[in-house]
Amino acid sequence: MSKPRHPAKKRTGEERRQGLNQFHRELSLIPIPLAHEISPGDSIANKLLQSLEQRNLTFESGDILVVKHKIVSKAEGRIVDLAMIKPTADSIAWAKQYKLDPRVIELALRESRAVIRRQNGVLITETHHGFICANSGVDVSNVDGGRHALLLPVDPDRSARQLHLELKKRAGLAIPVLITDTFGRPWREGLVDFCIGIAGMKPLRDDRGRRDPHGYTLHASLEAVADELAAAAGLVCGKLNRTPACIIRGFPYGSGQGRTRDLLRPPVNDLFR
Amino acid sequence: MSKPRHPAKKRTGEERRQGLNQFHRELSLIPIPLAHEISPGDSIANKLLQSLEQRNLTFESGDILVVKHKIVSKAEGRIVDLAMIKPTADSIAWAKQYKLDPRVIELALRESRAVIRRQNGVLITETHHGFICANSGVDVSNVDGGRHALLLPVDPDRSARQLHLELKKRAGLAIPVLITDTFGRPWREGLVDFCIGIAGMKPLRDDRGRRDPHGYTLHASLEAVADELAAAAGLVCGKLNRTPACIIRGFPYGSGQGRTRDLLRPPVNDLFR
Repeated sequence: MSKPRHPAKKRTGEERRQGLNQFHRELSLIPIPLAHEISPGDSIANKLLQSLEQRNLTFESGDILVVKHKIVSKAEGRIVDLAMIKPTADSIAWAKQYKLDPRVIELALRESRAVIRRQNGVLITETHHGFICANSGVDVSNVDGGRHALLLPVDPDRSARQLHLELKKRAGLAIPVLITDTFGRPWREGLVDFCIGIAGMKPLRDDRGRRDPHGYTLHASLEAVADELAAAAGLVCGKLNRTPACIIRGFPYGSGQGRTRDLLRPPVNDLFR
Repeated sequence: MSKPRHPAKKRTGEERRQGLNQFHRELSLIPIPLAHEISPGDSIANKLLQSLEQRNLTFESGDILVVKHKIVSKAEGRIVDLAMIKPTADSIAWAKQYKLDPRVIELALRESRAVIRRQNGVLITETHHGFICANSGVDVSNVDGGRHALLLPVDPDRSARQLHLELKKRAGLAIPVLITDTFGRPWREGLVDFCIGIAGMKPLRDDRGRRDPHGYTLHASLEAVADELAAAAGLVCGKLNRTPACIIRGFPYGSGQGRTRDLLRPPVNDLFR
């Protein structure tokens, strides 16, 4: 049906009889709750494997691991004491107008390479990585009650790759890893999780040039599977249930090293900056 | 953990022992392939129930049904013979510049209440429903090889409600129904499925005002669960595998009538029009 992908498990006799293939298989999301907070220097692989073991679960070939960036950022020590941040007069004036913490605004500006919008108390920036999101992803919830802020990982693809390699060593399987953050969207209410780091799979599925069942060539069928996986993981992972990770089982992903940059539209093709 | 939701199944003894609740449960996506095309006047409920029956599957209490709008639009006869469309000189000129079909551009403009961007061969409109997407959701793939175009349902919430009610009558269960379409996104490459119609559940999960495990009050935690469910469904539904629908099993949704309008940000709060 498409380019070969991992895992290309053989069809069962029953599937063949019904004309079904790997793309008709059930997909499951298995939450990985953590009982304890992650601290700087912790091994995330360790903590996740422990949690699975406690519930008699293991990684299987073909699994994808999705991890919220917060535990990655914590493990990597991307924590800033807000008391150490001296905001500029400009940050103070703007924050005051909307009753925001000027130190968070200051940090968001430092973590950005461009301001996309600063309006109605909302600061949308382009981060050094190229993500366009509110406050450069700087977050004060779920840290320690507001005294510290959490930054995005310096290089989320590298973080994903490290976790991917550690799992390979520990579990003996090449498990693709996605790191996610929760973003708002233009035009639509509510937050959704997006992929900000990837290792071990391709973030996009390219069906362009393929024909639909009527023979019509598909023109615009580049599917952001990494963002779909991230959004799906958002359904079982959550701030309030201490579940910063999950396994997605049964998705026929495209093998490859993977890089988040492929998910970012070059400014020249973008109509909304 | 949050406002009461359906299904509030009781914890098992094992879950209680491990400190787990319904938000730590596994979630599964069950594809519903259809062997045959949907034609105007067809009952989608019938076709889906037949497909499930063939594989010895049934709806269960707590299931959510996600359906690609294409089969809904087809069943409702939202099909336009492109030969009948006479584009304006303006549509012809612009389409020619980018080698597009001027009749599709013409239809997209007719289906819109505002043009958001028309640039680089991309037409982003606001549909009569309020969705902001390319070409007002007018689609020529998967219809009949390019002679006809498919429009979005006139009122996707109504379509979802009808399917919801028919399933209630046929299967005896109140199954929430989401209708989805595939949209591009600003700043990011690749397409993702979004919710364009809903019945039987709330599209947003509101955690604002709740406290995280550190006692920090969450300010921005309005989660677009309907869009997350739509994106997740995109992983198992597809143009090329004749799977226009799936069941999502195990998600503790918020009961309610539901309306897609709640997912649309009012222009006054929007920074990207």
